Amino acid sequence: MNSEKKENAIDLSYHISDLARSRQTSPLKGLSKYMGRPGVISLAGGLPSAAYFPFSTISGEALVSESFPVSVAEQSSSLSWLWKIFGASSPSKEKTSHLSIPKYPSRPDEVNLSAALQYGTATGLPQLQGFLKDFVDRVYQPAYSDYTTLVHTGNTDGWSRVASTLCNPGEGILTEEWTYPSALASVAPVGIQAVPIAMDKEGMRSDSLRATLEQWDEKVRGIPRPHVMYTVPIGQNPSGATMGLSRKKEIYDICVEYDVIIVEDDPYFFLQEGQYIPKARRVPEVPSTTLDAESRYISSLAPSYLRIDYQGRVVRLDTFSKTIAPGSRLGWFTCNPVFAERLERAGEVSTQAPCGFGQSLITQLLINWKYDGYIRWLRGLGAQYKMRRDYFIDCLLDEFDVKPSVATEGCWTGCDVYVAFSKPPSQGSVMSEKSVALRKPLFSFVPPTSGMFVWLKIHFQSYPSYGDRDETLEMKLWVALAEAGVVLGPGWFFAADIEDSPDGARDGHFRISFSNAELDDLKKATQIFARIVGEFFDTS
Amino acid sequence: MNSEKKENAIDLSYHISDLARSRQTSPLKGLSKYMGRPGVISLAGGLPSAAYFPFSTISGEALVSESFPVSVAEQSSSLSWLWKIFGASSPSKEKTSHLSIPKYPSRPDEVNLSAALQYGTATGLPQLQGFLKDFVDRVYQPAYSDYTTLVHTGNTDGWSRVASTLCNPGEGILTEEWTYPSALASVAPVGIQAVPIAMDKEGMRSDSLRATLEQWDEKVRGIPRPHVMYTVPIGQNPSGATMGLSRKKEIYDICVEYDVIIVEDDPYFFLQEGQYIPKARRVPEVPSTTLDAESRYISSLAPSYLRIDYQGRVVRLDTFSKTIAPGSRLGWFTCNPVFAERLERAGEVSTQAPCGFGQSLITQLLINWKYDGYIRWLRGLGAQYKMRRDYFIDCLLDEFDVKPSVATEGCWTGCDVYVAFSKPPSQGSVMSEKSVALRKPLFSFVPPTSGMFVWLKIHFQSYPSYGDRDETLEMKLWVALAEAGVVLGPGWFFAADIEDSPDGARDGHFRISFSNAELDDLKKATQIFARIVGEFFDTS
Repeated sequence: MNSEKKENAIDLSYHISDLARSRQTSPLKGLSKYMGRPGVISLAGGLPSAAYFPFSTISGEALVSESFPVSVAEQSSSLSWLWKIFGASSPSKEKTSHLSIPKYPSRPDEVNLSAALQYGTATGLPQLQGFLKDFVDRVYQPAYSDYTTLVHTGNTDGWSRVASTLCNPGEGILTEEWTYPSALASVAPVGIQAVPIAMDKEGMRSDSLRATLEQWDEKVRGIPRPHVMYTVPIGQNPSGATMGLSRKKEIYDICVEYDVIIVEDDPYFFLQEGQYIPKARRVPEVPSTTLDAESRYISSLAPSYLRIDYQGRVVRLDTFSKTIAPGSRLGWFTCNPVFAERLERAGEVSTQAPCGFGQSLITQLLINWKYDGYIRWLRGLGAQYKMRRDYFIDCLLDEFDVKPSVATEGCWTGCDVYVAFSKPPSQGSVMSEKSVALRKPLFSFVPPTSGMFVWLKIHFQSYPSYGDRDETLEMKLWVALAEAGVVLGPGWFFAADIEDSPDGARDGHFRISFSNAELDDLKKATQIFARIVGEFFDTS
Repeated sequence: MNSEKKENAIDLSYHISDLARSRQTSPLKGLSKYMGRPGVISLAGGLPSAAYFPFSTISGEALVSESFPVSVAEQSSSLSWLWKIFGASSPSKEKTSHLSIPKYPSRPDEVNLSAALQYGTATGLPQLQGFLKDFVDRVYQPAYSDYTTLVHTGNTDGWSRVASTLCNPGEGILTEEWTYPSALASVAPVGIQAVPIAMDKEGMRSDSLRATLEQWDEKVRGIPRPHVMYTVPIGQNPSGATMGLSRKKEIYDICVEYDVIIVEDDPYFFLQEGQYIPKARRVPEVPSTTLDAESRYISSLAPSYLRIDYQGRVVRLDTFSKTIAPGSRLGWFTCNPVFAERLERAGEVSTQAPCGFGQSLITQLLINWKYDGYIRWLRGLGAQYKMRRDYFIDCLLDEFDVKPSVATEGCWTGCDVYVAFSKPPSQGSVMSEKSVALRKPLFSFVPPTSGMFVWLKIHFQSYPSYGDRDETLEMKLWVALAEAGVVLGPGWFFAADIEDSPDGARDGHFRISFSNAELDDLKKATQIFARIVGEFFDTS
């Protein structure tokens, strides 16, 4: 299916950092040919006997892969999804199947608890490796053939290992101007700083990237031109933007030109929700029931950078945190084999293998579901997030008077921006045209197309006492909201450059997550938000 | 029970490395007071709804805590332990109990899968934290009261976090002259080097430690006087030595004097096997059946450094790898709260929390077993290792002519050393006194008192062609053994200073693990070893 794949990636080994270069290769490597040889008795490793592992079997009751409907229409008509959201109150209704991992299975190809709980699975259980390789091949379709998949303990561990493998202290990392704070926190102590690139509705802008690299002056900047990019291209954190194929091609080509490695942190890939359509204009979706529904679904998603990575300069980070559970602490790298070897060594001296209990349960779940079942699960999950996104934006539109507008500057240039005003004092009364025209915007947002978050820009210039730079307005409002019972993500937390926030001090920001709260609470939270914001701006 | 405990440790915060000092404190810390407040709706974090975790329950069949007898005598008389060693062939005989972790338990104090699989358990499940605190208090009895326990993902992760928290690049770490190679591999890339301290039968020598610190000359050594020690005091890897209380006191006092932090990596604490007694003189042990058997057992063990740590300068690393299973990827720090806070931050940007599947299964197991049950399990496990140690040394004594001797120099000074010679050509014949006297020693060893390993010193000066330094003799013999079907740990791998091995080139070393192989294979391996070593030295 990938007849156009290149046979080999180019040699990118010169990107490996000094630290990673000096990591020991396994000293027993040359000796390993004896280790697995039939009949050889190994007394070399410090392995306990599996007889001493106290678990003789572990098992789980797992939801069936079609637990969630694949479209919002299906959900709305049946309402059967409701008990799933409030699963706590009626778990007995859930349809589950049993999976079990015995310490000593009868067939050698089965997942084996005695192996999963032993040392020596730093590259992952063989059955998991096999599943991931097939999954990457069919879903992400890398443009070269000799890519490697390697397990890690979640994307935070993954990024932390990649950063130390590719960056020397005192270097810079290209990233979106608003970004995931932990990614920066993990590299800041070793003197690696963010180099923010401007954003628009698709996330990182290619023209800003080119300008930054083209005009790089080491003397002015104080650090060499960055050769590593950290990006969340789908469900961008915090903005919720989704980057399509053509933008990715533009950025990839610039990275080829300036020899930049792209680290694609993509936890929200399967939470692609598409354009928000207001309730009144929303047409019920008819879920595809054709035989190739799963592959058509995959084709409908914005692709990974891997799809265009003919040189092997993409390190993709996948995680089960959003698709199974955060406590899985399991994910994987997809990258060229040269980087993978160094990343494996980095794992050996820190986390070693991911937990064997989690690995074996998740592997057995994937084996039971099979590829098609897992894709079906992911489709259902994506539909849940789309439903949640729609529900939350609907709530905002209920509580505020929201006007669509097209931004002509800033990070939302070209986007359909929703600008929120206070509602007229009472439902019945009608404001005069004049008073409507005089109203000031409270906040604005672009409905996210992927992920878990709505990114609000609060227009503090509408605040009565707004004058000169007042950096504490964002936190003043944050505290007022928290005191009233709603906690949001404060915007300053997500600035790549906290000293020089992209929107200056004119605007504040909040990141609101619609992923976790019960729907009732989302409704209640928007009502509290409307009341407090109204009071704060005192528009009466 | 710890009335003599000091109220507070001294402030050791100046030991924190530059890197660790600059690690972000959680930016939302000041805001966290709102997070858990009843009635507050949090839309701040990127948490998936627990409704989307596909596991509704996980469960396990776990061995009962008294699965293994507490003494070798009990084992020998009943032989019932045999099926446990060869558990694979008759697992049905194992006595197990069922444990289960539902996503939404009915009681709030129960282990909760929806919480275990969510983000935010970087300090561990509350039930696990509670168990560990009680366990440390009763087993290790720290000499000060405000110590902290904090989970990590195994001692390799633990040590890796400690090293980066306490050491700056270009510093040295005090350690045994023979040591665990991965501990050095994890810090070597950041320019941290081992400073080897001579050993004797209790492991690290206090006089050598004092001499090293006293005579430290930064100009000669090129690095500042070390302020961190990495030590495996029980079941020392590779030597198998056990350090008693009085030696620990000597070393602790020196560390107070020279302000050194002791990192106690202690995975083999519960594998304390005691002195080896040859089969002929071995008296069957009568297991204690008194009510206070478990506490008497704890008192019989060589204590942790924590017992004498009145200043909070010990960072203890515990792991479930040897007591439950290596695939647990779960362990914990015990240390002063100042270090613990920095270690927690280091975890947040790398591994985050240990896997929720493993954490909840292990926590539930410990809850089911209770403290006394877990101690009973550990006693049984220790007896298994004692039995294995005895069995393997018995095998060596069967295959070679072994003479006890007292070493007067080198790392075995003062030990009862077992020196092995080839056996007389046939069982019936008797060697003349003269030929006995002319025999050359093949290898020697000190039976380990704890842990998983026998550390053999091979006397290559007995080798016919031995002349000048021949560094490849160790590996030549290693390959000959491997070709014949026995793989051992090559000695050079364990030298703290590979360039300048403690015993020079006169001797080679092998580390032999008796922890994993079936007893038949241990027997077979010693027979092969005897044949190959005999041929290698060509003593005929």
